[in-house]
Amino acid sequence: MTAILLDGKKLSQKIKDSIAEEIKTLTASGKKPPKLATILVGNDPASATYVNMKVKSCHAVGMISEKIELPDTTTTQELLAVIDKLNADPDTHGILLQHPSPPQIDERAAFDRIDLKKDVDGVTTLSFGKLSMGVETYLPCTPYGMVLLLKEYGIDPAGKRAVVVGRSPILGKPMAMLLTEMNATVTLCHSKTKNLPEIVAQADIVVGAVGKPEFIKADWIKPGAVLLDAGYNPGNVGDIEISKAWEKSSHYTPVPGGVGPMTISVLLLQTLYSAKDHFTPPLK
Amino acid sequence: MTAILLDGKKLSQKIKDSIAEEIKTLTASGKKPPKLATILVGNDPASATYVNMKVKSCHAVGMISEKIELPDTTTTQELLAVIDKLNADPDTHGILLQHPSPPQIDERAAFDRIDLKKDVDGVTTLSFGKLSMGVETYLPCTPYGMVLLLKEYGIDPAGKRAVVVGRSPILGKPMAMLLTEMNATVTLCHSKTKNLPEIVAQADIVVGAVGKPEFIKADWIKPGAVLLDAGYNPGNVGDIEISKAWEKSSHYTPVPGGVGPMTISVLLLQTLYSAKDHFTPPLK
Repeated sequence: MTAILLDGKKLSQKIKDSIAEEIKTLTASGKKPPKLATILVGNDPASATYVNMKVKSCHAVGMISEKIELPDTTTTQELLAVIDKLNADPDTHGILLQHPSPPQIDERAAFDRIDLKKDVDGVTTLSFGKLSMGVETYLPCTPYGMVLLLKEYGIDPAGKRAVVVGRSPILGKPMAMLLTEMNATVTLCHSKTKNLPEIVAQADIVVGAVGKPEFIKADWIKPGAVLLDAGYNPGNVGDIEISKAWEKSSHYTPVPGGVGPMTISVLLLQTLYSAKDHFTPPLK
Repeated sequence: MTAILLDGKKLSQKIKDSIAEEIKTLTASGKKPPKLATILVGNDPASATYVNMKVKSCHAVGMISEKIELPDTTTTQELLAVIDKLNADPDTHGILLQHPSPPQIDERAAFDRIDLKKDVDGVTTLSFGKLSMGVETYLPCTPYGMVLLLKEYGIDPAGKRAVVVGRSPILGKPMAMLLTEMNATVTLCHSKTKNLPEIVAQADIVVGAVGKPEFIKADWIKPGAVLLDAGYNPGNVGDIEISKAWEKSSHYTPVPGGVGPMTISVLLLQTLYSAKDHFTPPLK
């Protein structure tokens, strides 16, 4: 058995190409291109890099971007006022608030201020509730990117055991809910989980969503498992010890070039959906 | 080892007594008692019985109840209009829409129309999102009732394996999320789960939330597990084969007299919280 690489770079490009095509058609018919507003608070260099990548990708597919940079000293109230303005602007189809915000910001309040119809990054509490209920909404980009990779490679999670390692509100928890929607039996693990190696060893699908370099060891992996790595840690490594684990897997995402590129193309895709005035189509 | 019965009837009475006490103090100071509005659509006799039990319990603790009965032919729009009126009424502190509604009703839309501040039954999509994020809200009554039983008997789910059987939006899913909040490692099982007996056999805490009589067999249970049975099926039996399983457990909820009575006292408790203008306190 040879492990199959889940090529996020390739699928991401395919999605971007189709978005670019659609935007061409839109603009040819006289409509304005979709517009994504990005908000970066503070001076974190990694966050600045991420925002720049997103802005660049917008332009590459023919979208308009509005880049808002706020000082490190911004208050929650000031940030909410910026979001309110973007919510009210009929030309803005999507709003992305780059995570993490500086510590004085109530980031949850800021996320939740984003109008559900412009929450193309899928970060609001209400969108989490909706996805958990199987109701249409926009989905958190990284989990949805992983779902699209599964679909692209014909991997149906139904009836499979999935183990998600990490329970953050925009990654581990929604991924657990999306896999449950797709009829996997999901175990959600976290820092208080005991016997993690044994739990991971039962998984047909392993999701690394913990943000710790090579935290999930190759030894733990069941032969033939599908490995999805949403981690991107210093040293260009993910959350799974993929250099050794890939050989045991049936399918795996490389780092880089797996889940990472999907995150951006899903953001653009959902911005396009918003411009077309609909939510993300159901998973099934 | 002797299995300990988690006495929901007793804890429920204790909660009701303390609510009654508090309402006496409230009214003695000249304030109006809290008011719960119940809505029953259609003629389902079981639903009518549940609503009557809730109304009776309201009166027993000194709360005011407003019982709204709508015909079987009610449309979603008509139901939404009733909810809007109750949302706008400053004297109504809680709104309960009895599940299930007749098939022509969009029950999810009706639940979600309930003002979050009056959603004392914890059924809205937004309240689900909030509880999943660990943000204060009202909690779905049956899951929260089970959590209070665990707390009363000093059972800390942290680090334990929990298996929730059933993924309904107001029972299984929120129970999985609440147990995750309490640091359990939770596996959410459902109709598409394979090898359910083996999965249940790994659980330190088993939650029956599937609505099928004695579906979870005594054979599957790990000795010393905690058994929480939210099922209440024809023949007065739960979802767990408790007549045989209780002996293997460390703690178990009987049916009846376990989870059932907790559901009503939690409803009253959250109505009191609403009258006092705050959400349900954090679990930890």
